[in-house]
Amino acid sequence: MKLGDIGEFGLIEEIKKTQKKFSEMNFTGIGDDCAIFPSKEGFSYVVTTDMLVEGKHFLIDKINPKDLGYKSLAVSVSDVASMGAKAMFSFLSISINKNTSTQWINDFLTGYNSMNIPLLGGDTCSGEEGNMCINVTVIGECENTNIKYRSSAKVGDIVAVTSPLGASATGLQAILKNLPNYDESIKAHVHPYIFEKESVWLGTKNEVHAMMDISDGVSSDLRHICKQSKCGAVINIDDILTTQETKTLCNNLNINSQELALSGGEDYALLLTISSDAFNKINKEYKALFNSELYSIGTINSDNKITYLSENKVTDINRGFTHF
Amino acid sequence: MKLGDIGEFGLIEEIKKTQKKFSEMNFTGIGDDCAIFPSKEGFSYVVTTDMLVEGKHFLIDKINPKDLGYKSLAVSVSDVASMGAKAMFSFLSISINKNTSTQWINDFLTGYNSMNIPLLGGDTCSGEEGNMCINVTVIGECENTNIKYRSSAKVGDIVAVTSPLGASATGLQAILKNLPNYDESIKAHVHPYIFEKESVWLGTKNEVHAMMDISDGVSSDLRHICKQSKCGAVINIDDILTTQETKTLCNNLNINSQELALSGGEDYALLLTISSDAFNKINKEYKALFNSELYSIGTINSDNKITYLSENKVTDINRGFTHF
Repeated sequence: MKLGDIGEFGLIEEIKKTQKKFSEMNFTGIGDDCAIFPSKEGFSYVVTTDMLVEGKHFLIDKINPKDLGYKSLAVSVSDVASMGAKAMFSFLSISINKNTSTQWINDFLTGYNSMNIPLLGGDTCSGEEGNMCINVTVIGECENTNIKYRSSAKVGDIVAVTSPLGASATGLQAILKNLPNYDESIKAHVHPYIFEKESVWLGTKNEVHAMMDISDGVSSDLRHICKQSKCGAVINIDDILTTQETKTLCNNLNINSQELALSGGEDYALLLTISSDAFNKINKEYKALFNSELYSIGTINSDNKITYLSENKVTDINRGFTHF
Repeated sequence: MKLGDIGEFGLIEEIKKTQKKFSEMNFTGIGDDCAIFPSKEGFSYVVTTDMLVEGKHFLIDKINPKDLGYKSLAVSVSDVASMGAKAMFSFLSISINKNTSTQWINDFLTGYNSMNIPLLGGDTCSGEEGNMCINVTVIGECENTNIKYRSSAKVGDIVAVTSPLGASATGLQAILKNLPNYDESIKAHVHPYIFEKESVWLGTKNEVHAMMDISDGVSSDLRHICKQSKCGAVINIDDILTTQETKTLCNNLNINSQELALSGGEDYALLLTISSDAFNKINKEYKALFNSELYSIGTINSDNKITYLSENKVTDINRGFTHF
């Protein structure tokens, strides 16, 4: 049997199985966006690590080094923030060809440092051209009472997202196909907005139950919440907003824009479940604070599956992005 | 200018420069084996991260997956331990070809888990064949009073190591040249002994001043201690022990065995400086506890350079391993 047969999540399950012997210890491991271990009294550290591989996660001639530096760190900051934690410091490992210019590295570091997260250490090594590999680890800190888990969704919760979806996937298509007039989407792909302060604020709200960032697409990411919270969901795909650029692209390429929005991935918006009683109140405060809003897209139920509705009819959609 | 022109340590200096704005914050960053940040009252966490790239750090057909899994984690555990800290948990990112067998991954994990350090998270992605990339982050914990820094060497200290040197480099040569009868050295290369319990014990000794693990070779690693402690050293290369296999290999290949021992790298033995008054007492206790000993190889002085002596004459030796 090969890794391609079991897939990315199959591989993660294989790894998880080997960790059972440590299960009685005092920390949270594989399964959430981040691992958790104790900080000072009443606080925890959360840790995440992300690897970006040239040719898979980025094309070196399609992203400038500043954006790549920013995005390498941003995707991990997003993971930490989506648990309600404040990113504190980072570690960077990079395997890079020795013929790379020092200007390129300086630009990469400018983008990386623009997030204002101190870089405390890392590793550097010389790699083959065309095979750059970047690994970033971010450690954040959070009051224990504010940590949001994937496993905390409750039946009756409203499922919400923090932005229109699919812009990053639209940008990726525009980049790959060299399409003009998709500047906003391309920016969403190469320099995604991270809902850092929004997540930390949402972390302080008890009525926000489960929270994660959308990295593989709602259709894949919501499965993690449902699986770990032992619940199901019904999603009204007509409620999922997309940008005008996404609509135009999907129209031109004859793709269903809702499908792209649900399965495109890399939005780094937040996916959260909120007590239905509190939704309006929290959304009102959120709007006032962040000049943006929480978009309700469905409800958590007690099914063991996710149902997608369009015009009140059940509809099929594709699964999210997977690495294998 | 290219990265190859400034070298690995030049690149690290470039990165370090960009971090000055964070220097007033309460943690130790780039420059030691590990970064340090606060844990519970009186304790700190130490963090290290290491990247292993196929073709650079390992040859996939020359190391079995169990040894590779072990070594991927062991090199980081060694970094954490060499600061006097106990490794607590780890994070693994791996970019691996989807045609890899699940048996290979299971063997890799068996080796990884044999170190008994819980794996709390990580990342997996599909990579090109021939370009596997493994990144491991290890977090350890230490009483603040026991942390050993590279910057704490004192003039008059004895410079010591915890084993004969060069065995790993001997093993690497034997592997690359397909030489028979180097089993012990090959084991030292693919499955290095990590001085974990020894480091934690040495961490509790106030008379042990600076400590680090030997990853690039004494000639390179001692430069870090001297630079950061603002001192020099004199090393008697006749006092550096090598194994019989190293002597045989060097004799056959017409290499100076002391030079291989000093610059070969990947020994993962400890390099430490100890108050000269306390050396004999600590070495006696060390021998009794670990059935092994501390080998004095020289002395810290107030020069701004490292001098190598052989038969009481100054001698030149090559620099340690560098990645660019």
